[in-house]
Amino acid sequence: MRNTARWAASLTLTATAVCGPLTGTALAAPASLYAPSALVLTVGHGEDAALATPARAVTLSCAPRPSGTHPAPAAACAELRGAGGDFDALEVPDDVMCTKEYDPVVVTVDGVWQGKRVSYERTFANECVKSTHGVSLFAF
Amino acid sequence: MRNTARWAASLTLTATAVCGPLTGTALAAPASLYAPSALVLTVGHGEDAALATPARAVTLSCAPRPSGTHPAPAAACAELRGAGGDFDALEVPDDVMCTKEYDPVVVTVDGVWQGKRVSYERTFANECVKSTHGVSLFAF
Repeated sequence: MRNTARWAASLTLTATAVCGPLTGTALAAPASLYAPSALVLTVGHGEDAALATPARAVTLSCAPRPSGTHPAPAAACAELRGAGGDFDALEVPDDVMCTKEYDPVVVTVDGVWQGKRVSYERTFANECVKSTHGVSLFAF
Repeated sequence: MRNTARWAASLTLTATAVCGPLTGTALAAPASLYAPSALVLTVGHGEDAALATPARAVTLSCAPRPSGTHPAPAAACAELRGAGGDFDALEVPDDVMCTKEYDPVVVTVDGVWQGKRVSYERTFANECVKSTHGVSLFAF
């Protein structure tokens, strides 16, 4: 029985080795082996993304490795993973002081995070307040 | 008079050199010198992006230089520039033959193209038809 099981396992491995490369999955690009995570982050001055011209826009990809035009992709991806992909749950450090000045900036995040579509928009009272939400993610 | 003009020009250059780095523009990140172009492209099986899970997602940035997880960023950016940023205007080569099989794939593009927000979605009858729209842009 053990021999039969071993033989069956060996046959499966051989079949995978021979037939694997012919299947659709194996033919697809390596990127498809990961749940895709590819985002565009923008920041603009104003209260509403629909009205605010994006002053800056960066790409951020977190799989298979952190990359993008974001200035700190590795830190941004780690931060986002730490928040479980929930942009509202980004950690806010206690020791940052901001003025109460109202000069709103609006941040958007669009794309895909771990295989799920993302469309996020959030308005902060000013640039300083924006920068406190997550140390790296919105620092671009 | 010529000497005065030369002196004035020299003074302007000196003032620019000294004061330039203190201005807001010069302090901003280099990326802000360009109209931002940063996109996320996805492809999924189905008729509607809202229902189709994104099977693949890539980033594409076209300024200051083509980059991203897109497999051919330079060609994709050139193609998009050629179409004036109009995804519906991508060139369709005459010599590509596709089956009439209906196995829809939906493509989305989100982000910013030359400073303007983009949110594009298009459904193609099958993968082959998708690949004919633009040689590089949707080939990921």
